Amino acid sequence: MTGRNDSEGDRFPSTGVQCPLPLRDYPQIVLGHGGGGQLSDELVRHLFLPSFANDALQELGDASVVALGEQRIAFCTDSFVVQPRFFPGGNIGELAVNGTVNDLAMVGAEPKWLSAAFILEEGFSMDELARIVAAMADATARAGVDIVTGDTKVVPRGQGDGCYINTSGIGVVPKGIVLCPSRVQVGDAILLSGTIADHGMAIMSVREGLGFESEIASDTAALHELVATMLGVCPEIRAMRDPTRGGVAAALHEVAQAAQVGIEIDDAAVPIAPATASACEILGIDPLAVANEGKLIAFVPDEAASEVLEAMRAHPLGHNAARIGKVVADHRGMVVAKTAIGATRVITTQIGEALPRIC
Amino acid sequence: MTGRNDSEGDRFPSTGVQCPLPLRDYPQIVLGHGGGGQLSDELVRHLFLPSFANDALQELGDASVVALGEQRIAFCTDSFVVQPRFFPGGNIGELAVNGTVNDLAMVGAEPKWLSAAFILEEGFSMDELARIVAAMADATARAGVDIVTGDTKVVPRGQGDGCYINTSGIGVVPKGIVLCPSRVQVGDAILLSGTIADHGMAIMSVREGLGFESEIASDTAALHELVATMLGVCPEIRAMRDPTRGGVAAALHEVAQAAQVGIEIDDAAVPIAPATASACEILGIDPLAVANEGKLIAFVPDEAASEVLEAMRAHPLGHNAARIGKVVADHRGMVVAKTAIGATRVITTQIGEALPRIC
Repeated sequence: MTGRNDSEGDRFPSTGVQCPLPLRDYPQIVLGHGGGGQLSDELVRHLFLPSFANDALQELGDASVVALGEQRIAFCTDSFVVQPRFFPGGNIGELAVNGTVNDLAMVGAEPKWLSAAFILEEGFSMDELARIVAAMADATARAGVDIVTGDTKVVPRGQGDGCYINTSGIGVVPKGIVLCPSRVQVGDAILLSGTIADHGMAIMSVREGLGFESEIASDTAALHELVATMLGVCPEIRAMRDPTRGGVAAALHEVAQAAQVGIEIDDAAVPIAPATASACEILGIDPLAVANEGKLIAFVPDEAASEVLEAMRAHPLGHNAARIGKVVADHRGMVVAKTAIGATRVITTQIGEALPRIC
Repeated sequence: MTGRNDSEGDRFPSTGVQCPLPLRDYPQIVLGHGGGGQLSDELVRHLFLPSFANDALQELGDASVVALGEQRIAFCTDSFVVQPRFFPGGNIGELAVNGTVNDLAMVGAEPKWLSAAFILEEGFSMDELARIVAAMADATARAGVDIVTGDTKVVPRGQGDGCYINTSGIGVVPKGIVLCPSRVQVGDAILLSGTIADHGMAIMSVREGLGFESEIASDTAALHELVATMLGVCPEIRAMRDPTRGGVAAALHEVAQAAQVGIEIDDAAVPIAPATASACEILGIDPLAVANEGKLIAFVPDEAASEVLEAMRAHPLGHNAARIGKVVADHRGMVVAKTAIGATRVITTQIGEALPRIC
């Protein structure tokens, strides 16, 4: 491994020497390395990025954009290990299609082709596999994409857990569209497409056997049509993120870091369903850190924000959309929230994750 | 699930009624569903194909080819679960890069971009992960491709087995090149790029603790430059296959079925290293059914075969290349071999697999 990101700045205090592999405190993989928080970020920045060094990877977008002749194509990959595989509002198959469609949509791409690779555990129910595959087929039909290539591996009993799915995706980025966190500027408005924390709390309520009075359902949905609508109104939108693992907090953090700007949100402006809010409160979990699977955050030039917001609200997947904050020149690289009582709190990303196998 | 492939012909004899899901004998996934033999084929033909129905998938190539404006791009995916992860001649990281490069090469594509998705088990050694990632970086540098996007999931201890890797790949198919099993014609020559069964026997010898006198090393290698050399000599090559899971036998079978032609090979003409041949004989395994990771089979118009073979032999990855047989009008859909004593034997594909987690 060579090279590193100096902004990380994890020097040994006594010597000023930089450690090329500051994963030193973790000789083994821990759950948090897959949680979308600080440990995930370390693994990416200090192992994968320097090893696989190239410009497209360096952007760290939800999908990479590469040039192919006159066209630009988006390419992304995601593995799905969610447990349970069927949950209120969705299942692993639907998630695997929507998740990859959304990663393509976040760079403004029109999703076209998906791959599907299964790692099945010996003994996995053929009937359940058929139900998962049917859900994937439905989701691709709804999203207007095709699964054009696939792979199946079977591992012996005890060396997997039922069914893991990887989907990769290819999309085409329309001419003139460049969605990229580094384009975010001071003064931009921050729009959120709907209520937060529904997916994570749906999983948690089922898995932990928490009988909340009203059932919380996952928000899993394909966002590419909402994105196309927004870009139709304002092709100059700077960047988008779908706040999955790590939630809205992690997504905002990534942008604050990438663009080296400050981000200020208004707690009261963030939409959250009452049942989800109650569940988060009971469990003492910050909903900003909980995973979503059908929401997006957009960084929009302030002068276009009202018009984009109106277009979002007219779309079925955006009718709870809200302006939740703005990009500021203060506290660059940080995210803060104005609380209901007028105070300011710093929004940090989690070190690990609240809940493994959330997606 | 709707639709089915009539050529499968698994009717209930008494009624003539076709069963849409003839996986009825297997209510659960068995290891053979991932083995590249008949069970894998059933899963693909009776579950995935009818569910995800589209033209590109229907071809069942190592990679799918889709049109993007004036260009044609190849897209493929493969998960790697090989055990042990480090073996004579290679490791899971190298395999994950070369395997996907080869799937792209088998449709004639120039490999360009790869994704890398890791499913890690809690407790997996960070040092081993770094060695795997370094091997992937080396392999991409050698193959001239970039890993441009990735994902990492961590599953709790006991719900995985160390490290599973998925790589998907995108390549560009040069104008005029169409490699596709259905193009294979009676009279075509069948060329094989080198010795068979080395990868499978390397894995088996390590895993089963078989101390063969001479160490057998995996043949893992990226074949796209060999392919480009061959297509440079003869752009009319009909089809190629890399004989991985299921070995040469399964690859030939797929082509015999897809093109509805007979295939006849000459046992004595198939190159095999003495150590590998001995190991197969000791274990009673047909080397034709053993996995390769750096070999290809090409179906070439007879009149161009000698020239293509010469070009293969001049390439470092083809110096043991041989003409192993021909495409015939007899016994369509079947593969037969002429034995050393002049008899003919039918080459069948295995139902399951000789060895799980071979790649």
